[in-house]
Amino acid sequence: MDHTEILTRYTANFVDELINNGVEHVIISPGSRSTPLALAFSEHEGIREWVIIDERSAAFFALGLAKQTKSAVALVCTSGTAVANYFPAVVEAHYSRVPLILLTADRPHELRDVGAPQAIDQLHLFGNYVKWFQEMAIPEASVEMLSYVRQKASRSVYIAQEGNPGPVHLNFPFREPLTLDFSLEGIWEHKAYSENSYRYPLDGKKQLTLDQLEAFINRLKGKQKGLIVCGPQGDDEIFPEKVAELAEQWRLPILADPLSQLRTGRHSKGNVIETYDALLKNEAIRERFKPDFIIRFGAMPVSKSYLFFIKENKNVPQFIVENHSGYREPTGNVTDFIFADPVHFCEGLLELDKPNFSYEWLQEWQAMNETAKNHLLTGVEERITEGEAIRGLQKVIPENSTLYVGNSMAVRDVDTFFLNDEKNISILANRGANGIDGMVSSGAGAGAAAERVTLVLGDLSFFHDMNGLHAVKHYGINLTILLINNNGGGIFSFLSQAENPKHFEALFGTPLNLEFSKAAEMYGANYFNPETEEDLKRDLEESYQMRGLSIVEVMTDREENVKWHRSKWQAIADEILTNEG
Amino acid sequence: MDHTEILTRYTANFVDELINNGVEHVIISPGSRSTPLALAFSEHEGIREWVIIDERSAAFFALGLAKQTKSAVALVCTSGTAVANYFPAVVEAHYSRVPLILLTADRPHELRDVGAPQAIDQLHLFGNYVKWFQEMAIPEASVEMLSYVRQKASRSVYIAQEGNPGPVHLNFPFREPLTLDFSLEGIWEHKAYSENSYRYPLDGKKQLTLDQLEAFINRLKGKQKGLIVCGPQGDDEIFPEKVAELAEQWRLPILADPLSQLRTGRHSKGNVIETYDALLKNEAIRERFKPDFIIRFGAMPVSKSYLFFIKENKNVPQFIVENHSGYREPTGNVTDFIFADPVHFCEGLLELDKPNFSYEWLQEWQAMNETAKNHLLTGVEERITEGEAIRGLQKVIPENSTLYVGNSMAVRDVDTFFLNDEKNISILANRGANGIDGMVSSGAGAGAAAERVTLVLGDLSFFHDMNGLHAVKHYGINLTILLINNNGGGIFSFLSQAENPKHFEALFGTPLNLEFSKAAEMYGANYFNPETEEDLKRDLEESYQMRGLSIVEVMTDREENVKWHRSKWQAIADEILTNEG
Repeated sequence: MDHTEILTRYTANFVDELINNGVEHVIISPGSRSTPLALAFSEHEGIREWVIIDERSAAFFALGLAKQTKSAVALVCTSGTAVANYFPAVVEAHYSRVPLILLTADRPHELRDVGAPQAIDQLHLFGNYVKWFQEMAIPEASVEMLSYVRQKASRSVYIAQEGNPGPVHLNFPFREPLTLDFSLEGIWEHKAYSENSYRYPLDGKKQLTLDQLEAFINRLKGKQKGLIVCGPQGDDEIFPEKVAELAEQWRLPILADPLSQLRTGRHSKGNVIETYDALLKNEAIRERFKPDFIIRFGAMPVSKSYLFFIKENKNVPQFIVENHSGYREPTGNVTDFIFADPVHFCEGLLELDKPNFSYEWLQEWQAMNETAKNHLLTGVEERITEGEAIRGLQKVIPENSTLYVGNSMAVRDVDTFFLNDEKNISILANRGANGIDGMVSSGAGAGAAAERVTLVLGDLSFFHDMNGLHAVKHYGINLTILLINNNGGGIFSFLSQAENPKHFEALFGTPLNLEFSKAAEMYGANYFNPETEEDLKRDLEESYQMRGLSIVEVMTDREENVKWHRSKWQAIADEILTNEG
Repeated sequence: MDHTEILTRYTANFVDELINNGVEHVIISPGSRSTPLALAFSEHEGIREWVIIDERSAAFFALGLAKQTKSAVALVCTSGTAVANYFPAVVEAHYSRVPLILLTADRPHELRDVGAPQAIDQLHLFGNYVKWFQEMAIPEASVEMLSYVRQKASRSVYIAQEGNPGPVHLNFPFREPLTLDFSLEGIWEHKAYSENSYRYPLDGKKQLTLDQLEAFINRLKGKQKGLIVCGPQGDDEIFPEKVAELAEQWRLPILADPLSQLRTGRHSKGNVIETYDALLKNEAIRERFKPDFIIRFGAMPVSKSYLFFIKENKNVPQFIVENHSGYREPTGNVTDFIFADPVHFCEGLLELDKPNFSYEWLQEWQAMNETAKNHLLTGVEERITEGEAIRGLQKVIPENSTLYVGNSMAVRDVDTFFLNDEKNISILANRGANGIDGMVSSGAGAGAAAERVTLVLGDLSFFHDMNGLHAVKHYGINLTILLINNNGGGIFSFLSQAENPKHFEALFGTPLNLEFSKAAEMYGANYFNPETEEDLKRDLEESYQMRGLSIVEVMTDREENVKWHRSKWQAIADEILTNEG
């Protein structure tokens, strides 16, 4: 067998097995060394290729796509710094538990550490940020080595998705010439590798025993005031319904993060307190509403006031439910961890005797929530504010679509202003490491598999990843970007850095002074620049009727924004404390 | 002492000592956790700050600045994926031996691996790509700990610059509140840390003994036909003169890479064969001009035909001179390494008896070089070609300026068409890992310290790092970009991938179809779009009279480009072989 045939069979068997195991999308960045993988994926009919030039964008695109589809996405790039450009998205995928399969081409051993062009040390390049690293063998096409390459493919998909999902990295040394020969027969088949075997293992979920569930309920005996807290998590199908049922049966308020999937959809929302971030801003409210216990699902909520709240309740028993494992509890409070599938956990509890918690406690939270909502939903400013932009967005965002939320101010504004809604909206964000990078590409990646995605983000985040717009244009992805432009780092105006005016604007304010309408032109976007909430709603609705990329840019002012937010929070607290007082 | 005073004294002592050790520039990316470092650098009068939003750009900007100034540049960023965005430039700095001091802010120990926001595992994040990693102590302000922090600062500058320079990484855990108090007295001083000590060590260079030099010359005894090869290296002051003197005395041709600094400047260029890449494309010429030995300085040349040439001369003794250490020899040929300062090495050889090499050999190379130059310098196409763009650029590029060259086609066109020149031009490129990423920022960084920088690069490379334009606009850096737009990956048309048309355009051609004039508008650039070599020269000259950013975009055609290059190479070979034949 000659070099080209060996290379073709080896690569084709790998690619075919990856697809057998359910991988449906591959993101390819152009390069020479990666030619065998790029060609094999392109030739195989079972997978969709997306070619993205900038590898940093490519990896965030894969991240968004994997979040949207809830399954592993493959990536291919050439050797050298291309691989290093994956790193930000790999870190995010690690912490936000997103399955990625990184396939990097490399020079063969004899061209390593000898000054060959575009040859860098790629072994374990991502350190502990990948769940599995394999240096692949130099291509061979014996029966054994074709089994080997299929097994690596199959295991990579499994490992990326099992337990807490995350990225895996396979590094492929390839010798020249790098092209394949698709006229060869049977390159996608491997007869010795049984069609009847389980490729993807039968893999169980962690479930508590009846004894464990009863022991848990015993821990809650005698307590009156409980809270369920739902932080960021991705299941928008079964979990919201189950946890809502549990909350109703147990009469517990649910403090629901915007990324918990609890605020949107058809499940019952009577107990969902979605304004808790605004409520807990006030120290007197935090003081008055001390819980007897907390059960948390998902990651730590976005809300900073919730963080203060639990820090002030150090001795309150806290139970954190993680699907598989993990330690996401940054306050240092003593915590009981429950490692079990949360749906099964809720179902198990629902079958047991219902504890007798305080109904009044729930009603008080519900009343406060109504008061806060009235404030958040009313009042119209002459010039649109950041909160009004989110409020307007919520009114018109289409059913069965995805809302992808940028970090920094955007996710906080969504936390405050995106309230309970019957519409089925998946709300996604990159809350593993909370970076402002890669957001356009993440939204575009989600858009590659969703009917319609709305991405809301600030100007610094938009700027950071403008390259992500190219894939949107090139593939005609239906993406509406709500760009909240406060010309700089708006979040810093809320922090203590703002008290030091001397270096503030240079180091933290960092105005970009860019006209993004020109970027919109370059990337062929429909561009809107509304000035009021009414205009915004009209423009968003128009964008949802259009194909491809739309950018709806709202200009706001950083200082006014701080004042406006603070006045809202103050008004809410004032009304609640007066009523209570 | 309270928290703020401790934090202020600790950070100020670190920053002050970094500056004492000669660091003149710091690149700061905005963030909250990094506030102490950002503020201390901004407050200190001894250093220039550059604030750059996108950390990937920031790191490449630092790389370009460090290359231009030939000294270490500091970087500051916040915790999280910000740090990971440094990775591509860190890899490049490692392989191209550029001193960077990476100062990353981190959460303190109690906020690590507990799901705290923007907290990732930053320890040894860059693996073996940094020469030195230090996890810094939680700030303390005892006499001992202020000495400690000054010693870390001082050592970081030394280690980044010694031997083969490269990046170092210091990770700073900071607790809140993060602001400093500059009204405190004596924060920049540390009396117990002696003003009279050597902070930066007296550090010798490797030099061969007389015995070693004589032994080397003995190895060359009886040989007639030698070659000096000068690959990429950064010394544009002393080395070019010394190696030119050696070549003249020894009657050896110098095959000079465009990045060797041998093609430009006032030193004698009688022996500098700058067209060797074009000459060695021809197999018959390679066959006819087999050398008896090769002495190489600097890294492997860009030229692919030179790589073929030495591969075909496996048994020819090859000597590679490295300033300090290294193994940059990708052919696998048996090689003798000489680890010694190349200037001292040349000077040492010049003082010894001159070997008796063939004069005819030198004359033949010189004659071939003249023939090739005639072809490269003549002929005008109706529509400007990529080679003509470089030729035009060379005619008008100003004295005492820097030419920063992109990878892929740009550096190859410069190799072929940027010929010997009396002007003092530093020619820089990122040839550590040869990525197309980070080029705009690298050029901008060089522009931050140079009078005038011209950056020549292709459209994919320009696109990859358009974010780098923001710093150029924001700081009014004088940068002329010669953008050679062949709408895609031009280099692939020269490779075997082009023989497979089915997937070629999607995977390798990758046309962007973007109007970069719109990017020029957004970033306030002077924009030119010349169609002939004459227009190009006029536009470039105009750009050199203007302040700030200029983009001179030349539209070319990928397929025509291949034909035109190949016809040039063929014509050169034909004339030489006819004359010789």
